[in-house]
Amino acid sequence: MPKIPVRVVSWQEIVDWSYGLAERIIDSGYRVDVIIAIARGGLVPSRILADRLGVVDVISLKVEHWVQTASRNPEARIKYPYSVDLSGKNVLIVDDIADTGDSLILAKDYAKRNFNPKEIRTATLQVITQTTKYVPDYYYLEVKDWAWFMYPWNYWEDVINLVKKLKDSGVNIKNLEELKRAYVDSYGSHPPIDLNIIIDEMKRRGEF
Amino acid sequence: MPKIPVRVVSWQEIVDWSYGLAERIIDSGYRVDVIIAIARGGLVPSRILADRLGVVDVISLKVEHWVQTASRNPEARIKYPYSVDLSGKNVLIVDDIADTGDSLILAKDYAKRNFNPKEIRTATLQVITQTTKYVPDYYYLEVKDWAWFMYPWNYWEDVINLVKKLKDSGVNIKNLEELKRAYVDSYGSHPPIDLNIIIDEMKRRGEF
Repeated sequence: MPKIPVRVVSWQEIVDWSYGLAERIIDSGYRVDVIIAIARGGLVPSRILADRLGVVDVISLKVEHWVQTASRNPEARIKYPYSVDLSGKNVLIVDDIADTGDSLILAKDYAKRNFNPKEIRTATLQVITQTTKYVPDYYYLEVKDWAWFMYPWNYWEDVINLVKKLKDSGVNIKNLEELKRAYVDSYGSHPPIDLNIIIDEMKRRGEF
Repeated sequence: MPKIPVRVVSWQEIVDWSYGLAERIIDSGYRVDVIIAIARGGLVPSRILADRLGVVDVISLKVEHWVQTASRNPEARIKYPYSVDLSGKNVLIVDDIADTGDSLILAKDYAKRNFNPKEIRTATLQVITQTTKYVPDYYYLEVKDWAWFMYPWNYWEDVINLVKKLKDSGVNIKNLEELKRAYVDSYGSHPPIDLNIIIDEMKRRGEF
């Protein structure tokens, strides 16, 4: 069975971390004109930061990660690319976590080439220093030991993917008690959505 | 002093309402390919809906409301307009609330003309039936009596604006006790951020 440490993050933690991150940005003296939210992970942190910092303009960039044939490492690219004029503006690119750093590297490069801003800085709630190739200009929490952080806007998708992993490793997910035991044993935390509800949703999606 | 009924909304309510809204969309049989979040109000509901519905693609449209000279009614327009190709896609435009309905009308028309989708539907957490010119295809709560809904991603901005209204109506906001009494008396609810912290932030922003 897979052994992946999963840490369930609450909404209150997201608010606390976002406010803490905002204070670091304020303390640095950087005056943000436009926030670019990396979709989908940066959407909620961006909205809370915009409130705390008093930023009206929030736009987004959809980053997708796709696995190239014969390559183990997924590559990041911008889906639905577009150009807007941000000349003279101080930009803050926001994501939830810097895990590999690929999304931030890509979005920063893309914004530089297509949006023509005055300055670009980057911010995330968390950074995993062991694994990231890029450290954002601002972050709130440094994660020393890798874990999968399950953010509250991703509970359904994450739990479904974790159940699929158990299924792939041979767990009989039709037996709810066995599934529950295997889940906690493999991930070290309880699912934030009841597994019987998740199973119903997987059936609806044709993924059971 | 202004008398504006203010209703403070919690994160848990946002989650419950978003999940409830998602279930209505599921029950209708509409299969969403792309969510268009109206920024900034639709960013958080969009992210939660995307999770619940299993939608990977979330993009955003920044709508701004500006007051034309000699007009009392603010007009909605798209800030940072752009075009992407959504041909063949079922689109869902998401906002927090249909109050006047202007943002949804504008975004739907804009998406139709610039994104070329197969179909567009609209969804909000709440609709104020008294005042809206447009009723979204999906909504979770119908508000019969107008109130200002203070969403958790907008606490700072809303409380600052409500304090400014008190100041404009003659309340001495330098007297914290007087300010607190006037706030509760005028808005019928307690501020979700302490007013002394709000005053500090207003000073930082040069708005005190």
